[in-house]
Amino acid sequence: MTTLSPDHLSVLEKQSIELPSWAFGNSGTRFRVFATEGTPRDPFEKIADAAQVHKHTALAPSVALHIPWDKVDSYDELRAHAEDHGVALGTVNSNTFQDEDFKFGALTHHDDRIRRKAIDHHFECIDIMDATGSRDLKIWLAEGSNYPGQNDMRARQDRLADSLQQIYARLTGEQRLVLEYKFFEPSFYHTDVPDWGTSYAQVAALGDKAMVCLDTGHHAPGTNIEFIVMQLLRLGKLGSFDFNSRFYADDDLIVGAADPFQLFRIIAEVIRGGGLNNPDVAFMLDQCHNIEDKIPGQIRSVLNVQEMTARALLIDHDALDAAQQANDVLAANAVLMDAFYTDVRPQLAQWRETRGLPADPMAAYAASGYQQQIAADRVGGTQAGWGA
Amino acid sequence: MTTLSPDHLSVLEKQSIELPSWAFGNSGTRFRVFATEGTPRDPFEKIADAAQVHKHTALAPSVALHIPWDKVDSYDELRAHAEDHGVALGTVNSNTFQDEDFKFGALTHHDDRIRRKAIDHHFECIDIMDATGSRDLKIWLAEGSNYPGQNDMRARQDRLADSLQQIYARLTGEQRLVLEYKFFEPSFYHTDVPDWGTSYAQVAALGDKAMVCLDTGHHAPGTNIEFIVMQLLRLGKLGSFDFNSRFYADDDLIVGAADPFQLFRIIAEVIRGGGLNNPDVAFMLDQCHNIEDKIPGQIRSVLNVQEMTARALLIDHDALDAAQQANDVLAANAVLMDAFYTDVRPQLAQWRETRGLPADPMAAYAASGYQQQIAADRVGGTQAGWGA
Amino acid sequence: MTTLSPDHLSVLEKQSIELPSWAFGNSGTRFRVFATEGTPRDPFEKIADAAQVHKHTALAPSVALHIPWDKVDSYDELRAHAEDHGVALGTVNSNTFQDEDFKFGALTHHDDRIRRKAIDHHFECIDIMDATGSRDLKIWLAEGSNYPGQNDMRARQDRLADSLQQIYARLTGEQRLVLEYKFFEPSFYHTDVPDWGTSYAQVAALGDKAMVCLDTGHHAPGTNIEFIVMQLLRLGKLGSFDFNSRFYADDDLIVGAADPFQLFRIIAEVIRGGGLNNPDVAFMLDQCHNIEDKIPGQIRSVLNVQEMTARALLIDHDALDAAQQANDVLAANAVLMDAFYTDVRPQLAQWRETRGLPADPMAAYAASGYQQQIAADRVGGTQAGWGA
Amino acid sequence: MTTLSPDHLSVLEKQSIELPSWAFGNSGTRFRVFATEGTPRDPFEKIADAAQVHKHTALAPSVALHIPWDKVDSYDELRAHAEDHGVALGTVNSNTFQDEDFKFGALTHHDDRIRRKAIDHHFECIDIMDATGSRDLKIWLAEGSNYPGQNDMRARQDRLADSLQQIYARLTGEQRLVLEYKFFEPSFYHTDVPDWGTSYAQVAALGDKAMVCLDTGHHAPGTNIEFIVMQLLRLGKLGSFDFNSRFYADDDLIVGAADPFQLFRIIAEVIRGGGLNNPDVAFMLDQCHNIEDKIPGQIRSVLNVQEMTARALLIDHDALDAAQQANDVLAANAVLMDAFYTDVRPQLAQWRETRGLPADPMAAYAASGYQQQIAADRVGGTQAGWGA
Repeated sequence: MTTLSPDHLSVLEKQSIELPSWAFGNSGTRFRVFATEGTPRDPFEKIADAAQVHKHTALAPSVALHIPWDKVDSYDELRAHAEDHGVALGTVNSNTFQDEDFKFGALTHHDDRIRRKAIDHHFECIDIMDATGSRDLKIWLAEGSNYPGQNDMRARQDRLADSLQQIYARLTGEQRLVLEYKFFEPSFYHTDVPDWGTSYAQVAALGDKAMVCLDTGHHAPGTNIEFIVMQLLRLGKLGSFDFNSRFYADDDLIVGAADPFQLFRIIAEVIRGGGLNNPDVAFMLDQCHNIEDKIPGQIRSVLNVQEMTARALLIDHDALDAAQQANDVLAANAVLMDAFYTDVRPQLAQWRETRGLPADPMAAYAASGYQQQIAADRVGGTQAGWGA
Repeated sequence: MTTLSPDHLSVLEKQSIELPSWAFGNSGTRFRVFATEGTPRDPFEKIADAAQVHKHTALAPSVALHIPWDKVDSYDELRAHAEDHGVALGTVNSNTFQDEDFKFGALTHHDDRIRRKAIDHHFECIDIMDATGSRDLKIWLAEGSNYPGQNDMRARQDRLADSLQQIYARLTGEQRLVLEYKFFEPSFYHTDVPDWGTSYAQVAALGDKAMVCLDTGHHAPGTNIEFIVMQLLRLGKLGSFDFNSRFYADDDLIVGAADPFQLFRIIAEVIRGGGLNNPDVAFMLDQCHNIEDKIPGQIRSVLNVQEMTARALLIDHDALDAAQQANDVLAANAVLMDAFYTDVRPQLAQWRETRGLPADPMAAYAASGYQQQIAADRVGGTQAGWGA
Repeated sequence: MTTLSPDHLSVLEKQSIELPSWAFGNSGTRFRVFATEGTPRDPFEKIADAAQVHKHTALAPSVALHIPWDKVDSYDELRAHAEDHGVALGTVNSNTFQDEDFKFGALTHHDDRIRRKAIDHHFECIDIMDATGSRDLKIWLAEGSNYPGQNDMRARQDRLADSLQQIYARLTGEQRLVLEYKFFEPSFYHTDVPDWGTSYAQVAALGDKAMVCLDTGHHAPGTNIEFIVMQLLRLGKLGSFDFNSRFYADDDLIVGAADPFQLFRIIAEVIRGGGLNNPDVAFMLDQCHNIEDKIPGQIRSVLNVQEMTARALLIDHDALDAAQQANDVLAANAVLMDAFYTDVRPQLAQWRETRGLPADPMAAYAASGYQQQIAADRVGGTQAGWGA
Repeated sequence: MTTLSPDHLSVLEKQSIELPSWAFGNSGTRFRVFATEGTPRDPFEKIADAAQVHKHTALAPSVALHIPWDKVDSYDELRAHAEDHGVALGTVNSNTFQDEDFKFGALTHHDDRIRRKAIDHHFECIDIMDATGSRDLKIWLAEGSNYPGQNDMRARQDRLADSLQQIYARLTGEQRLVLEYKFFEPSFYHTDVPDWGTSYAQVAALGDKAMVCLDTGHHAPGTNIEFIVMQLLRLGKLGSFDFNSRFYADDDLIVGAADPFQLFRIIAEVIRGGGLNNPDVAFMLDQCHNIEDKIPGQIRSVLNVQEMTARALLIDHDALDAAQQANDVLAANAVLMDAFYTDVRPQLAQWRETRGLPADPMAAYAASGYQQQIAADRVGGTQAGWGA
C-alpha cells in the first residue's frame, strides 16, 4: 500500500494556509445572515479564533485582514496580539463594494472624486501593510454593472489600468499587488475583472510585483480550473489562491467539500508547476461558514487542503510519464486515481502525533472547550459580520 | 408592415401583472444593500408606490404581500388604502427563510416544534388572505442544505408533503396554494423543491387547488423555460409566473432585460397553451431593483411584458403551421422572428393615449414629480428591506 | 479503520451492471470517429467482448442491445451465443435518430406515416425482446428541434403520449418501458423529453410498467442528480440508470471519472431509497470509449461502480442520523466523507480472490492476451460503430 | 422614429462577412449526419453555392477554405473559379483533428514525428495561402484530452508555443496567424486552448501578426462575450470572429438565432472599439446547417449580422454617455434597448433595392430556382462533409 515518504512529510510540514479573518465573523446570503454563538466582536477576537486553527493543525500561521472591517486604532497592538497567539498578520484585502460612493464603481468609476477615494483607500491599505508587515495587497474587484448599457466597459477597463498603476507605484519593498477575478456577483451583467485573462492582462501591464489571485469559486460552470493554475504558473503570474468550494455560484463552501477530486487535480497541477511551498504562490482560504461552526469549519478546511496535498504527492510520476508517453489513457488516469483514492488520513494522524499535534484536530478542538468558552464569554457587543 | 389588430389590442387591454410589494423596498446582495432616497418605510407606502405603476400603465392592478414583511395591524385598513389608490391586494407570500428557528429548515424540519411553527405561519398567512381577499398563497420553499450529508433529503421530502397537506387543508373558498421551485440559493448543496418536476409531484398529490409557480430566474443554466411553460399548461398545473431576468443565477433583474427573445418565447408558449388572461395563470413580477430607481424599474418591467405580449400576439399562426407542416425550418423560424422583430412600441404608445394613458409611461412618471416628492417626504424612519 | 462487513460483501456480491453492446464498437464526436484495433464487426463479437468484462469482474452478467445496430437473423442464436459466453441479453434500446425519415421527429412527428413507422419500430423491438427474453424496452427520445418555431412543442408532447400509449399497450408479461430524458443533443433548441419531470409525467400517464431512465450525463450544469434519484425512488418511478460521467455536456466518459464524489452521493441515495439490488432499478452503463481501449474501459467502469457502492455501504447511518438530528452540519458531512475517503480497494481485491476472481481485473485482462488476439483476428470486415 | 442615416448606410455598405466553405457541405452530430439534396461534391460546387449568398446580399465577398477538405489540384483554377463567381478565396483553416496520427494531439503531441507532421500540415496551408492569396491562417486547436492524467497539460502548452513559433516564422508578407480557442469538444477533460486568455498569451508571445479568433459558440455557459470583444480590441489582439449561435454547447446554429440581443451587444462593442469594417478584425461565419437548407441558411445568417449591425449603429451615443455619466441605469439601458428594438428591416429592404439587390434576399433566392437546379444536377458522386 502506498504511503507518504519522509520527503513527502517534509513537504507537508512546510505547508501553510492563510486564514481569512472574516471567516470567523457572521456571513450569510442576501436572504439572511444567521448568527452563531461566540462570534467575535472585533479583530482581536477573530485572531484569537484563527489561532485556534493553527494551534490544532500547525497549518495556518497567518491571518488575512479585510479593511475597513478589521481597522483598529493600533496595528502594532494587533500585530503583537497575533504574535502572542502564535500567528502573524497576512494579506490585506481592500474593499470597494460597500461604501455608498462605490455603488456604481470605485477604481473604475467615471467620477474622478470617487475614483480618487477608491485609490486612496488602497493607499491606506498599503499604510496598514507597512504597519502590519503584510506582504500582499489583495484586490478583489467587485465592480461591474447590472444592465447592458449601464456603463462603458472599455473606458472602465482603461480607468482600472490607471488606478492600478497608481496603487502599484505606492508599493514598498517586497510588497505585492494581487488582483482577483470573479465571474459574477455582486454585479449581474458585467464584472470589470471577470476572468483570469483580464486579471493577467492587467497585472502583466503593471510589473513583476503584480500577480493574479485565483479564487476557486469564481469561474463559469464547467471551467477546468487546474488548467488555469497550470497556465498562470507557466506565465509566472499565479500569486495566490483563495480556496473554497462550490456547487453552483460563488457558494464559498469548505474547500474540498463540493468536489474533492477537483481540489486534488488543482493541487497536483500546483505541484507539477512548482507552486507548492513556493513563497510566490500563497495559499489562502476564502470561505463563509453560514450555518456551520466557524472555527471547526476552518480546521476542516485546512485539513482538507493538507490531506489532498498528501494524496497529490503520492502520484507516481514515473508511471504517469510512462503511461502518457505510451498514450495509454486508462493507465495514465489510473495513476492519478490511485493517488486520489489512497486514504492518507491514518498516516497523517500518526504523523501529527509525532509532531506534538492532535491526531484528530477536529476532535481535539471540540474537546478543548474553547467553543463553549467563547459562547459564554462573548455576550453583548455586536458580532462581526460584513457590515453589508 | 404588421400591426396589432383590434382583437390584439382587446387582449392587451385585459392583461394584468401583479407587483411585489418588496420591489419597492431596498434590496441588494450579500455584500451590500444600497439605499435609495424615497424608499417606503411601511406597507402603506409600498402600496402607494405600486399604485404609481398602475396609474401610468393600467397594467398592474394588484400588489402581492410578503409576510411578515408586510404585516400590519389592520388588513381592512391596508385593503381600503389600496383601493383608495386604485389597486387591490393580491397574492400572499409566506417566508420560511429568516426566522432563526428556520436556519436548518421549516416545512421540512425534523423537529416537530419547528415544523409546527412553519405550518402555523402559513395558517397565519391564510388568515391574512381571508382578511385581504387574496386568492393565492405562494410558497417559495427556500429550504435546503449546504453540505452533502447535512440532511436526509428523502425524509424532508416526505415531511414537506405532510406540511403542505396540512396547509392545503386550511384553504377556504377559491383560495389556492402555489408552490415555487428554485435551483439553488440560499442553500448551496440541495434545495427541497429545486425543479418543476418536484413542485409538480408535490402539488399533484395535494389536489386541484394546488399549482406550480414558475419563477423565470430559478432554473439551471441553459434550461428551456418555455418548454416547462408548455408542459405545465399541458398538465393543467401552471398557477403563476414570477417574472424577472438573469444572466447568471437568480439575478432578479428587470424582466426582459437579459434575454428579450427568451421572454418572447415564453409568452408565445403561454398564448399557445391558453394561459394568457387566464385567471388560472397569474402574471407577477418578482424582481430586485438594487441600483436602479424602483418605481420606474417596475414601470419598465410591466411595459416589457406588455410589449413582448404584443409581439407574441403578432405571430402568424397560419404561416407558422404551414411551415412546420412542411418541415421548413427556416420559414418557421422566420415567422417567429418576424413577430419578435416588429417594433410594436409606436402603436402601443398611440393606443395608450386613446385610453387616456401616457404614451410614454416612463417619461410621464419622471415628469410627475412623484419621485422627488417621496424623496423629500420620506425622511426618518427605517426604509423597508428584507430584514435579512 | 473501517472495513466492509460480511453483510456488505453479501450485498456487493449480488450487484450487477448491464453493459451496452455499443460501448464495444467505435464511437467518437461529430469531428472524428477514431478506430481501434480489434473492434467487433457484429453483435456476436460485441457480446464476446462484453463477456470478458463479466469474466474478470463477475459484475456484468448481461448485455444491452441497440436496434437496428444489433439486429441479427436469429435472436435464438444470439441468445445461445451469449449464454455460451456466460452472459444474458438485456435491455433492448430503440433508435429513432438515424433513419432519414426521422430527421424532424419520430414518435412526435406530425406526419402520421412517419410516426407510424416509429411506433412500428418499437413493436419490432418488443418482438425482439420476446425472442431475447429481455425485460426492458428503453426509449431514449432523441427527438427535438434546432430553432425556435421549428416545431409545435405542445402538439409533439401530445403525440408522444399517444405513441407511448400504443407501445406500452404492446408490452407482454413482465416487460417494461423505460423512458430516458436528456437535456440537449442531438437537438439544440428543444428536446421532447428534456428532464425527469417530463419523463415522469409521461410514464405516470402510462401505468405501472412504465418507468424513468436516468442517464447521469443528461442534465443541466450544476444539477443535483442524487436529489432526482431520491425523488424518483420516492415516487416509485426510477426504472434504470445509464451510468457515465461528464465534465461539460453528455461526454459519456467512464462512470466516476469526472466526479467520483458525485457518483458516491448518487449511490448513497440509491441505497437510502432501497434501490440497490432492487430488480425495479436496473444499473446499466452507457458510455463511449472514443480514445481508450474499450474492454478495459468497461472493466474500469464496473469496478468504479462496485468500489463506490462499497464506500457508500460504509456510511455509518447511526452516526449520520445523530448528527443530522443535532443539526451538526460538520459532523454529518464528516460521516459521509469518512466513508467516501475510505480506501476499499485492498479489501475488495482480497475478497475477489476468495471468489476465484482476479484481485486486479484490469491487470488480469491485460495479461490474458485477449486484446492482442482480437486485434490479430479481427482483420477485414467493417468495424461496428453507430452507423451515423 | 429612428432611421438609419446616410452615414450609417455607408458603413453598412462596406460590411463583409466571410463564408465557410464547409457550411455548404453536410454536417450533423455524432448521432447522425443527415443528407440534403443538392449538396456540393467538391470545393468548386461549394464556392458556386457561396457565391449565391453574395449575389443576393452583397455581404459575403469571400469564402474560407478548410484543408484538407478543400484541397484541389490547382488553386489557380479554384481562385479563377471563385473570381468568375464574383467571390474571393479567404481564410485558410487547418485541420488537426481527423488524421489517425492526431488522435492524442498534433501541435501539442509529445511524439516529435507527429508534431512535425502537424507543423508541416500548417506549412502546406501557408503554401496554399500563397497560391490563393489568402491573408489569414486560422488554427482552431481541437486538441486536448478526455481524462485527468491522460496528458501533461503544461508540457503540451510549451510544445504548442514552439509549434506556433515555427508556423509563425513561415508566414510571408501580410499573412497572419489567428488562434481560435474553445471551451470543450472534441475533448472532454481539457482543451489546449480553452479560453481567450490562453489564446492571447500564446499569440502575444508570437508577435504582431498573430491574433485571437473569437468563435461566439466557444465559451462557458453565461460568459459575457462582449466583454471579451472589448478586452481583445483594447489589447489590439482581436483578429477575427467566427459567428454562430448556441443554446447549450457549440451548437453552431445560425448567428443571432439563439440570442439576438447578445449578438446586438457584441456588435455594439465591436463598433465601440473600432472593430467594424476594420481590416484587422475579420467577420466570418462558422456554422452547421444540419437540418435546414444550407444556402438560405447562410443568407439568413449574413442578413442577421447586417440587421444587427444596423441596430447597433442606431445607438444614440450622446444620450448613452449622458445617462452613464448620471448613473441613470434605466435611462442608459433604455438607449441600448431603443436601438435594439427598432425595426430596421423595412429601411434595409428599400436600401437594398436602391443598390440593385433584392429587397428580400431569402425570397429572391427561393424564387431563383437555384436550389431545385442543384438538387437536379448534383446526382451521383459523394456529397461533401467533414469526412469524420
